Amino acid sequence: MKRMLITISYDGTAYHGWQFQPNAITVQSVIENALFELLNEKVTVVGTSRTDAGVHAKEFTFHLDCADNIPKAAFLRGLNGLLPYDIAVTDAKEIAPDFHARYNALGKTYCYNIYNSNKKDPFKLRFAWQIERPLDIDKMNEFAKSIVGKHDFYAFSSSGRTVENTVRTVSECYVTKNGDDVKLYITADGFLYNMVRIIIGTAVAVSDGKINVSDIEDILKKRDRAALGMTAPPQGLFLEKVHY
Amino acid sequence: MKRMLITISYDGTAYHGWQFQPNAITVQSVIENALFELLNEKVTVVGTSRTDAGVHAKEFTFHLDCADNIPKAAFLRGLNGLLPYDIAVTDAKEIAPDFHARYNALGKTYCYNIYNSNKKDPFKLRFAWQIERPLDIDKMNEFAKSIVGKHDFYAFSSSGRTVENTVRTVSECYVTKNGDDVKLYITADGFLYNMVRIIIGTAVAVSDGKINVSDIEDILKKRDRAALGMTAPPQGLFLEKVHY
Repeated sequence: MKRMLITISYDGTAYHGWQFQPNAITVQSVIENALFELLNEKVTVVGTSRTDAGVHAKEFTFHLDCADNIPKAAFLRGLNGLLPYDIAVTDAKEIAPDFHARYNALGKTYCYNIYNSNKKDPFKLRFAWQIERPLDIDKMNEFAKSIVGKHDFYAFSSSGRTVENTVRTVSECYVTKNGDDVKLYITADGFLYNMVRIIIGTAVAVSDGKINVSDIEDILKKRDRAALGMTAPPQGLFLEKVHY
Repeated sequence: MKRMLITISYDGTAYHGWQFQPNAITVQSVIENALFELLNEKVTVVGTSRTDAGVHAKEFTFHLDCADNIPKAAFLRGLNGLLPYDIAVTDAKEIAPDFHARYNALGKTYCYNIYNSNKKDPFKLRFAWQIERPLDIDKMNEFAKSIVGKHDFYAFSSSGRTVENTVRTVSECYVTKNGDDVKLYITADGFLYNMVRIIIGTAVAVSDGKINVSDIEDILKKRDRAALGMTAPPQGLFLEKVHY
């Protein structure tokens, strides 16, 4: 047996997130079905994170244990041939038998796309949240800067959270604008349930003048979810990179 | 009554082309249903062309006759609100009562996207034809140039064609390459059934050395469909502009 770390990229529109669910099509179940067809044995894969329904990944990793004798190139090409167009295997490498796709990740980078325009565009809306009113990028960056560092992000998580410890360290967070495309990039050692999407909703509320950046520290301390912005819709969110 | 020319943009992946078909979802039927909801009357729209199943449009036009008293802005916003994310109304203007979306078009520009890479990419494949082997852009441009002008394009059409006259004038045809993205742009006074997709298949066959550009004139004269390349898949094709 050998353990392999597989890197994939997917358009999450058609999927109920990564994680296996009975009675729903998830990225994990589609991959496990393709692996069963390729290897003729039931293989369980372990993802680096759950991702919500409709969220995309430029780079997502999982590990699996398989027989020693599968050449990497054949594995990659075989799996890609069995997967639909919206899931691509981009890398596969052998790792130590105790390496874990989730626990060994030092951090992750997400990118969230906002399409900031009052024109409807079918080629943008699959991968972005449309906001028609002009956004204040300076204010959004002021907010982004305010959450960098080690904080209890309890307020920035939804009730479906499954962890006790809600302290995370954000190492980088900033907003860029290029024409109608506004992007927020965030890197942290880990993310709570819906954390990025609540950060986006709050960045927009700050831009709208509904939340003051000077209040964020207090809201974090009070763990007050209700004082923050909405949970932004999933289709703008991309897992950009997994750091090992 | 007034006649209006509506401009839309759509991601055609989910649709069986523009034209109404019983028992299939087409762009036309979705728009007519939205118009029925908006105007509370059955309105028939006339498109500038059919487009095949899975083909996209950056700009597609149709005309319709409706009551005088609908303000343009309300019409636009109302219709966009009723349409799914993958169809957008981008313009609406009043036209002369005898103007026709199809017959008044002087020409159209199509663009075909090829993703020229051996890497699978879920964010490319919805809107491009993947070709793994390197393409010879110079050869493709030599072929593109050879079809510019007035020719009988019978050989570049599929048996489903519905017209008698197969002579068309191509005013411009060229290929560009930007990284992995290869695009063929073509403008003509009209297009036959599958004409652009057979032109693309042939451009690729020329790149592969399977067809010589010097033979194209002869193939056109002999109306020999079998001597040309395959019909390229629909998902790379975009109606780019309708010229009036």
